[in-house]
Amino acid sequence: MSERLRQVLTAVQPVDTSLIPQGQAHLDDLTKPRGSLGRLEEVALRLYLISGGSKPSVDPARIFTIAGDHGVAAEGVSLFPQEVSRQMVLNFANGGAGINVLARTAGIGLSVVDAGTVGGTYPEHPALIQRKVRPGTDNLAVGPAMSVEDCTRALELGIDLANMAADEGCRAVGTGDMGIANTTPSTALFCAYLGLDPEKITGPGTGLAADGLRRKIEVIRRGLAANQTAVTSGDPLRILAALGGLEIAALSGLIIGAAGRRMAVAVDGFISTAAYVSAWKLCPAVADYCFLSHASAEPGYASIMQALKADPLLHLGLRLGEGTGAAMALFVMRSAAAIFNEMATFSGAGVCKA
Amino acid sequence: MSERLRQVLTAVQPVDTSLIPQGQAHLDDLTKPRGSLGRLEEVALRLYLISGGSKPSVDPARIFTIAGDHGVAAEGVSLFPQEVSRQMVLNFANGGAGINVLARTAGIGLSVVDAGTVGGTYPEHPALIQRKVRPGTDNLAVGPAMSVEDCTRALELGIDLANMAADEGCRAVGTGDMGIANTTPSTALFCAYLGLDPEKITGPGTGLAADGLRRKIEVIRRGLAANQTAVTSGDPLRILAALGGLEIAALSGLIIGAAGRRMAVAVDGFISTAAYVSAWKLCPAVADYCFLSHASAEPGYASIMQALKADPLLHLGLRLGEGTGAAMALFVMRSAAAIFNEMATFSGAGVCKA
Repeated sequence: MSERLRQVLTAVQPVDTSLIPQGQAHLDDLTKPRGSLGRLEEVALRLYLISGGSKPSVDPARIFTIAGDHGVAAEGVSLFPQEVSRQMVLNFANGGAGINVLARTAGIGLSVVDAGTVGGTYPEHPALIQRKVRPGTDNLAVGPAMSVEDCTRALELGIDLANMAADEGCRAVGTGDMGIANTTPSTALFCAYLGLDPEKITGPGTGLAADGLRRKIEVIRRGLAANQTAVTSGDPLRILAALGGLEIAALSGLIIGAAGRRMAVAVDGFISTAAYVSAWKLCPAVADYCFLSHASAEPGYASIMQALKADPLLHLGLRLGEGTGAAMALFVMRSAAAIFNEMATFSGAGVCKA
Repeated sequence: MSERLRQVLTAVQPVDTSLIPQGQAHLDDLTKPRGSLGRLEEVALRLYLISGGSKPSVDPARIFTIAGDHGVAAEGVSLFPQEVSRQMVLNFANGGAGINVLARTAGIGLSVVDAGTVGGTYPEHPALIQRKVRPGTDNLAVGPAMSVEDCTRALELGIDLANMAADEGCRAVGTGDMGIANTTPSTALFCAYLGLDPEKITGPGTGLAADGLRRKIEVIRRGLAANQTAVTSGDPLRILAALGGLEIAALSGLIIGAAGRRMAVAVDGFISTAAYVSAWKLCPAVADYCFLSHASAEPGYASIMQALKADPLLHLGLRLGEGTGAAMALFVMRSAAAIFNEMATFSGAGVCKA
């Protein structure tokens, strides 16, 4: 582990839970039956803790959609050809993808980041940050996806992005991914970190049929076996390098960096949750800053949530990635913060309390 | 039934389902794996049908938060005293309630309507529409809550509100309620319309403890017995008059009127869903225009959804009413429309299709 990464991991502070009573007292004094705004109140309280007891907010917010390619795509684990990662980076830059539309609708900034797609540099574009660590990972089915050094560089890239957002004044970031075949490394990471069975949590990704799904499970099993030393080492950085991806590691770094700068993080779906689990294993305190945004339609997601004892905010059957669920969740988080900051109190509004 | 109401009910047209294939083809040509935006795609398709095959939209949208009082409050079925309905109308007008904050955050217009709170007129306020049909209903536990004539006037008020929104250019409306004790008439309506058991679907409302809940179930049983002739008549208007409320009937009218003007409707939680079921019994075609916005935290809500074979968009544990769930859902609907209208196509963006 680099000295820089070690320092950043050490710098992440858990939120101050002694603030809970005063935050809760404020919520209970707003003109509504106690607890009647459900999860909005839960989110508002967490944002209050993240803000250190001042005004909770997620605005401005920025989503980073980070792209990387995967050597394991050679195993035929995705319906889409690998060049689609690159095509989609251009689509993001041109504003035509799902995440562009949803971030725009929610009034959230969007940056697209090449952390490691196959191929050379892209034409310059103001929305595109080109920080290719390497052009794709190796095939995790036969050995480590990348070296610990490359993984560290990807993590540090994510930390740089978090600092960029914090310096810009952001109060929250959203995570988004693009990378053909990246449900495979994500599933492998869930298995390695949470002790889950590939048979149980492997899903169809962008739309594999039954035979494709069977092959994907086999590939993940082979990957776990080929990287057994890393898996059994219990070292989260080695596991991330062995089974992860460049965009996944960069997203982990973004989460860690954001927590270090006391920003809230809207964690998108399946791939981003793998990045979150990686970040959490490297630095448990990140959990205080992270909001799992939506229940991925990947069938394994429910088991993963059970293992994490977590319940995401939205259940919209999304399985696109890119940060689309994070964009929707940031709107929910913004609404929660507004409730905390803007509602009248019983005494102020002259409303009788129950 | 008044001639006017009869005409409006007859004028509601179901959407043209022959447009489904072309709407679906468009969604499948957008740069994302097929179906990967889950319920956003389902909503987008429905909005496309509501728009008659042109550009789906929910904007501008306006939420009507309609208030009324309930004679049955005398039975002690709510934790809050009845004057809170009036206090909350003033709180809405002054911008301090939950719905004010959430509508503002979502960029949605809000009108507050007095359809029948107890007490006299309110000071004039630009956000407040004063159309009191009568100051509260009678106690449904001992007889009909109101006459069919008063119920018709409340329905027609709702139709007027829908026309007001349509004339303003709205593409969608949201429903919201305020009325101390109004989970009681709502529950009675669900029982009468859907054949459900009060024991099974009666919940704590704003926070009743076990003994209060038991009393509330008893009150609903008595109400169903006292109004048995209406309940067994199978006449949806008579049932609504016997067991409903002025705000509930006005919300039914709003839903019917909005469907008649081809606007989408975001139906809020427990009380608004009772208004929706009333509207649907009066005019089945309204179903095509309505989006159940969120799963109310009232424990009976799940049985009601089962009876309706429906699954609301959001699961945030809200139980405030006022239109708060509708405000959140309108954001989801806006996002869905934007996906349909703004995403690039595979051919347009030069992205390979799977």
